[in-house]
Amino acid sequence: MFFASDNAGPVHPQIMARLTQANEGHAMPYGKDAIMDEVRDAIRTAFEAPQAEVYLVATGTAANALALACYAKPWQTIFCSTTSHINEDECNAPEFYAGAAKLTVIETDDMMTPDALRRAIEKHPDGNVHGAQRGPVSITQVTERGSVHTLDEIRALTTVAKGYDLPVHLDGARFANALVALGCTPAEMTWKAGVDVVSFGGTKNGCMGVEAVVFFDPTKAWEFELRRKRGAHLFSKHRYLSAQMAGYMQDDLWMTMAQQANDSAAHLVAGLRAAGAAFLHQPDANMIFASWPRRIHQKLHDAGAKYYIWNGSLEGDDPEELLGARLVCDWSIGKPAIDQFLSHF
Amino acid sequence: MFFASDNAGPVHPQIMARLTQANEGHAMPYGKDAIMDEVRDAIRTAFEAPQAEVYLVATGTAANALALACYAKPWQTIFCSTTSHINEDECNAPEFYAGAAKLTVIETDDMMTPDALRRAIEKHPDGNVHGAQRGPVSITQVTERGSVHTLDEIRALTTVAKGYDLPVHLDGARFANALVALGCTPAEMTWKAGVDVVSFGGTKNGCMGVEAVVFFDPTKAWEFELRRKRGAHLFSKHRYLSAQMAGYMQDDLWMTMAQQANDSAAHLVAGLRAAGAAFLHQPDANMIFASWPRRIHQKLHDAGAKYYIWNGSLEGDDPEELLGARLVCDWSIGKPAIDQFLSHF
Amino acid sequence: MFFASDNAGPVHPQIMARLTQANEGHAMPYGKDAIMDEVRDAIRTAFEAPQAEVYLVATGTAANALALACYAKPWQTIFCSTTSHINEDECNAPEFYAGAAKLTVIETDDMMTPDALRRAIEKHPDGNVHGAQRGPVSITQVTERGSVHTLDEIRALTTVAKGYDLPVHLDGARFANALVALGCTPAEMTWKAGVDVVSFGGTKNGCMGVEAVVFFDPTKAWEFELRRKRGAHLFSKHRYLSAQMAGYMQDDLWMTMAQQANDSAAHLVAGLRAAGAAFLHQPDANMIFASWPRRIHQKLHDAGAKYYIWNGSLEGDDPEELLGARLVCDWSIGKPAIDQFLSHF
Amino acid sequence: MFFASDNAGPVHPQIMARLTQANEGHAMPYGKDAIMDEVRDAIRTAFEAPQAEVYLVATGTAANALALACYAKPWQTIFCSTTSHINEDECNAPEFYAGAAKLTVIETDDMMTPDALRRAIEKHPDGNVHGAQRGPVSITQVTERGSVHTLDEIRALTTVAKGYDLPVHLDGARFANALVALGCTPAEMTWKAGVDVVSFGGTKNGCMGVEAVVFFDPTKAWEFELRRKRGAHLFSKHRYLSAQMAGYMQDDLWMTMAQQANDSAAHLVAGLRAAGAAFLHQPDANMIFASWPRRIHQKLHDAGAKYYIWNGSLEGDDPEELLGARLVCDWSIGKPAIDQFLSHF
Repeated sequence: MFFASDNAGPVHPQIMARLTQANEGHAMPYGKDAIMDEVRDAIRTAFEAPQAEVYLVATGTAANALALACYAKPWQTIFCSTTSHINEDECNAPEFYAGAAKLTVIETDDMMTPDALRRAIEKHPDGNVHGAQRGPVSITQVTERGSVHTLDEIRALTTVAKGYDLPVHLDGARFANALVALGCTPAEMTWKAGVDVVSFGGTKNGCMGVEAVVFFDPTKAWEFELRRKRGAHLFSKHRYLSAQMAGYMQDDLWMTMAQQANDSAAHLVAGLRAAGAAFLHQPDANMIFASWPRRIHQKLHDAGAKYYIWNGSLEGDDPEELLGARLVCDWSIGKPAIDQFLSHF
Repeated sequence: MFFASDNAGPVHPQIMARLTQANEGHAMPYGKDAIMDEVRDAIRTAFEAPQAEVYLVATGTAANALALACYAKPWQTIFCSTTSHINEDECNAPEFYAGAAKLTVIETDDMMTPDALRRAIEKHPDGNVHGAQRGPVSITQVTERGSVHTLDEIRALTTVAKGYDLPVHLDGARFANALVALGCTPAEMTWKAGVDVVSFGGTKNGCMGVEAVVFFDPTKAWEFELRRKRGAHLFSKHRYLSAQMAGYMQDDLWMTMAQQANDSAAHLVAGLRAAGAAFLHQPDANMIFASWPRRIHQKLHDAGAKYYIWNGSLEGDDPEELLGARLVCDWSIGKPAIDQFLSHF
Repeated sequence: MFFASDNAGPVHPQIMARLTQANEGHAMPYGKDAIMDEVRDAIRTAFEAPQAEVYLVATGTAANALALACYAKPWQTIFCSTTSHINEDECNAPEFYAGAAKLTVIETDDMMTPDALRRAIEKHPDGNVHGAQRGPVSITQVTERGSVHTLDEIRALTTVAKGYDLPVHLDGARFANALVALGCTPAEMTWKAGVDVVSFGGTKNGCMGVEAVVFFDPTKAWEFELRRKRGAHLFSKHRYLSAQMAGYMQDDLWMTMAQQANDSAAHLVAGLRAAGAAFLHQPDANMIFASWPRRIHQKLHDAGAKYYIWNGSLEGDDPEELLGARLVCDWSIGKPAIDQFLSHF
Repeated sequence: MFFASDNAGPVHPQIMARLTQANEGHAMPYGKDAIMDEVRDAIRTAFEAPQAEVYLVATGTAANALALACYAKPWQTIFCSTTSHINEDECNAPEFYAGAAKLTVIETDDMMTPDALRRAIEKHPDGNVHGAQRGPVSITQVTERGSVHTLDEIRALTTVAKGYDLPVHLDGARFANALVALGCTPAEMTWKAGVDVVSFGGTKNGCMGVEAVVFFDPTKAWEFELRRKRGAHLFSKHRYLSAQMAGYMQDDLWMTMAQQANDSAAHLVAGLRAAGAAFLHQPDANMIFASWPRRIHQKLHDAGAKYYIWNGSLEGDDPEELLGARLVCDWSIGKPAIDQFLSHF
């Protein structure tokens, strides 16, 4: 009954197998390994983007911070939502990598709206040397509250950004979960919708620790390589990053795992709804925010269920008080664990 | 015949086995995994340092840059030798992590001497607001030229540093190779010799990508954790870093592998010496700098041998011109590959 | 009719006289001049703080950014209001000087409230490595909207900060204007109210370009000196900064000038009120936000009045539409200019 | 008898007069003052560079660090000599402003040679992601040891730089002293010799605190403005920077003062030579490095002469031991003070 995060699950056997297979003899270091060529091709094909530049790093924060740093000047501000990972969960890594750039946080409980984005941009008039200058827009898909932007919603945001000539970054730590939720293609969810660079997540979706940064604008390639090295994120034994990503892309494993995670979440949502839980956000993919009485949380806790109490605390006198929970399903969580979880309601 | 680097060899099966073993079910992320407790204990025991704080990162540059940043203020200068990895091979990562601190490079062909270190420190008088302030001293063991400081040599350097109240960092990307070369204990080569923090390498010595940072002064612990997260080097699926390091420490595998690498290098040195090669540096561990005529380089190259020409170039008219080579033996290189290499002389 | 800013007025003759007087022969550079000793004494006396450390820089942004950098670690966040100068008007200088720290902006139309400050701090739980860590609180007095915190209001904010052990910075670019508005002592408005470091402004109040940074906690002294030098803000011919500040402090000129500016503003407020203008913020000191019909703005503009239209634009069809204005009175603006301004209503 | 530095002398009366003249009524802030237009024209005319962009800051370190930051990427290295001000006397300001770029220091007792520069550049091979990348070359004219590059020497250095497509910065804190020493034009000593950006000093040569940054490549203009603001170096009451520079340029006062300083130094050199002093560097402009016996230093010290003992110390037993001295003549030092100084030999 582990629902604390999708970063706590095991690596898929197909990926483990690729690691073992890669572990033969010597291989050129620092991304010159042959498997990386395979990865580059696979991602270009998946994104229908033959010119795209593809790089691997080991953490999602590295992917986000390095990608943004290629677009945000130190005197600019990055536009993002309150709830974004880059704002709340990266301990100033984006600011660090972007040379002390600012984040302009658009207050929202989940997604930013095009209107709120426009207002935030307008507050930074062009050519005013005193304020932070306008920088890139960063969108999170799946959001940190578990909802998924429709293609129209993404396009509405990128249209605002492009109206000011601002580049757009997509934090896709859960890219695959969003993709299978929308049933669209990677191209449709990215460059066809106005996205310039994407953090394409693997770690939360069954890899060991690998994320791709995909630049649809290849002019940033060498700068990214230098920033990655300077940030100490260039792996000498790079083949083991490549092997993970190769295993992930092979036979669409990445989508298969995301589908499993989303299906598990849907099963859990259905059970929670039947049990009378209230939903705090729309559960579009593999992450659920819901609330139910303290006494049930207590039972779950006693039974060993792992998840975060989102607001409030287990301690408290009123057994009927509603407490929020964040539940995340990874690819490996099975129906039995979910049914066991639901049995305590 | 792969001698280009020890960062190009395979992972030892014992470490692969630990990764597979770790890949069961869910585990708490971000270093809260149970295997990390085992790693911490193993390293504290190995270093006879029960109070030491131990952290894992995935690259040697991250280990060095983060460790130094905990000791170097942005207005200070780090003292190191010309040939140090932090000066030549990290694309300004130490400067980046230390908030734009300077590196004062002590000109040398290999190790810095205590006298040269003292002169460099004295050039930065205490209390002079105009110049860079005195910061930590960084020593590399094994050096980037393949030689190993004796314990006396380390102590002579740390004694100079301590005379100015400066902390000492040891870049131990090849820590194990130096240790078995000296036949001393980890404590003797570090805190007993005046070292405050060590980058304890795993990647070059049979791991996939893991380095430990060991602080003998535990007061830096929380700062390191924040710097690691801010640098995007905190792994969510941390158990896979822990598992590598656990497998590495288990049954002294780390020393066994280093001994194999050093033995291979000694075999290669003996063969080169017999063949009349000249040595550019003292080959104390698993890295060799030697020179021989161009025509033999050409034969080796044609036969598929991989290594770096250190100075000069394969192109050239004179078949007898001596060209330098850097040869590195990793744990996995066997006598057959070495003998095959030597057969071309 | 110049009301665009108090940074556009002339230097007071008493200060010019001190500059001329200082311009005799040679003087030790970099703050070792004898006039600086006089300045230090004068400010310590004025603040009833014999242990305080006092430094001079030439711009308000330098004072704020350097002072905050001594208290904010790169992985922390500085708490401030939306309207603060450090957020809106310093082009990321605080972030730059604090090594890429974050600003957590408390949404407000003017001052932050203690409750809003507490909520913002609580959003950054202690010991959570993922988010920005809690850093200093920065208060602006006079606010950028022209209102003045009462001593109780300052104490309410510093009490919240101190409850979390957070240091407090006061941006006093218009310190004197606030002080005479409140009729209190410098000590009461700063360290007695819980402020740790203050940017004590001179430039906007009749100096040429000088601000003092006053640390009530002298342990930050040497760090500040290094940061000032590293930021290129240490003047070689420092005596000319000292002379300005000496002239400013002499015979309480600083308070005299502030009183003149505030009196001018009060005269202008009375006239605007009589003319039916609406006030957007409480005009407590020398800065006024008010609105009146476009046609009157047009008349003022044609007559050569200088001030910023705060929202809206002179262009527009409706002559009766209310447009906001920001009007600032400096020490030198006289009643004739104000009466001339008012004559257009 | 003040020879400690040319940053300790008074401001020329013509410049004081311009400050007084500028102190009338209100003026637009932040560089929009009318005097700045005059300054820009005067400098463009002096440099025969109608397209040049001209900015003012208050310190030489700000001029150098901001100018270099426009050309040096954070992953690059700036090439300079050991003795350069940016290396020895700016407390890591260049590194700070350039986002943690490195300085590659070319070992020399004074000027770098073209060969040494070429070797240093060659050590950073193009396209090697591991090392710092090649960045701008910075030349100091007058050097910090008092010698002046000939035009041929400058061109020889810039030719090396241009051969690698590297931009060239000239630290001209004593630009005027070099210019009158060479008897050439500003254009000949800068853009005609291959210099891209120059720190054009005023402070050491009779101003209060002002330096111009002159970009012969105007594409850097807006970036410089943003960097200047972000560095807290944009003056609100900018007219007082402009007035200094306007007074400095007027009727070639800058060259007149430099000629006075150089003439004074020549007089002092002649006297020292006659007195048997040995010269440590070629005294080409207004700065002298010479040595003489301790007992004479002692007499000078007792008589109140101010200058730096360059190596060695007044304390010591041997009255005949030679100690070095650094002597700097500013515009205001007169023959009487020099003759008084020489009378102690």
